[in-house]
Amino acid sequence: MSGAESKGLVLVFTGNGKGKTSAAMGVALRALGHGKRVHIVYFMKGGSPYGEQVALSNLSNVIFSRFGLREYVDPKNITPEDKEEASKSFSAARQAVLSGNYDLVILDEVNIAAAWKLIDIDRVTELIDNKPADVDLILTGRYADQKLIDRADLVTEMKEIKHPYASGAIAKKGIDY
Amino acid sequence: MSGAESKGLVLVFTGNGKGKTSAAMGVALRALGHGKRVHIVYFMKGGSPYGEQVALSNLSNVIFSRFGLREYVDPKNITPEDKEEASKSFSAARQAVLSGNYDLVILDEVNIAAAWKLIDIDRVTELIDNKPADVDLILTGRYADQKLIDRADLVTEMKEIKHPYASGAIAKKGIDY
Repeated sequence: MSGAESKGLVLVFTGNGKGKTSAAMGVALRALGHGKRVHIVYFMKGGSPYGEQVALSNLSNVIFSRFGLREYVDPKNITPEDKEEASKSFSAARQAVLSGNYDLVILDEVNIAAAWKLIDIDRVTELIDNKPADVDLILTGRYADQKLIDRADLVTEMKEIKHPYASGAIAKKGIDY
Repeated sequence: MSGAESKGLVLVFTGNGKGKTSAAMGVALRALGHGKRVHIVYFMKGGSPYGEQVALSNLSNVIFSRFGLREYVDPKNITPEDKEEASKSFSAARQAVLSGNYDLVILDEVNIAAAWKLIDIDRVTELIDNKPADVDLILTGRYADQKLIDRADLVTEMKEIKHPYASGAIAKKGIDY
């Protein structure tokens, strides 16, 4: 493996369009296919059994941590419990990153958790700054802070061009979750 | 299942940013987790054993078709062989969509294959127009034709904000392939 291959990358998937978490899951799949160990930490997704988890559970080398009391956090009504759950997710992420047990750690929806101040952005930047050199990190969610973008190697903005649910149609099983 | 849930969707992931194929793979994972049957057709990716394929091979209900002579097609030097391979991919996709054997069919890089005229855009639009109502389709790749966007239910543009390989660094195993 060349030096360029072994350097850990920080990837950010942000923007208002669909595909941020999906892209992270796709990268997880690739990593697993190459024998890497993956830890996926969900923020603010306490509720439902996601299809991706069911499928990934059939594969080796992947672990999940999932916290969040409610399916959807209301940004206008952030509760201490919401913050506590986010803090649990963050602790799991921190442990996963620093443990050296994982090659790829995904912090799903961490961008929005930080933007809504469920967790302090400085805790996230500190984790990035202190991560082992060879660990890959993926941060997903809308409203990625500039501090995260500055620290990322790769940033993609998923931009909504067209969305069927804008008109109020429901999310579809097997596509959206 | 409600009517809204069972209606097949056409998703397009396009743009110059990273995450298009990854997002499609993530959606495939979700679909598999819900017991759906998935067929992934690659255009212009004859060369290498992709990590996602290795990982997905461990799951049930997913099939691959992959054609393409070379790893990278040169748009300034499209050969008859390139077109022939793309045509094979398209035939596999067509068969998968019309067979009724799959709930989700992914046409990976079909947008660019059409943009570079490896396949006729009208064959793609015709397939979309004639697909069984309950089949979900995902079309990935840069330069999605307006005819595809017009027919899509959901379109995300993956926009490159920052990319480490812009400076000529190599693609990373387990992240990019």
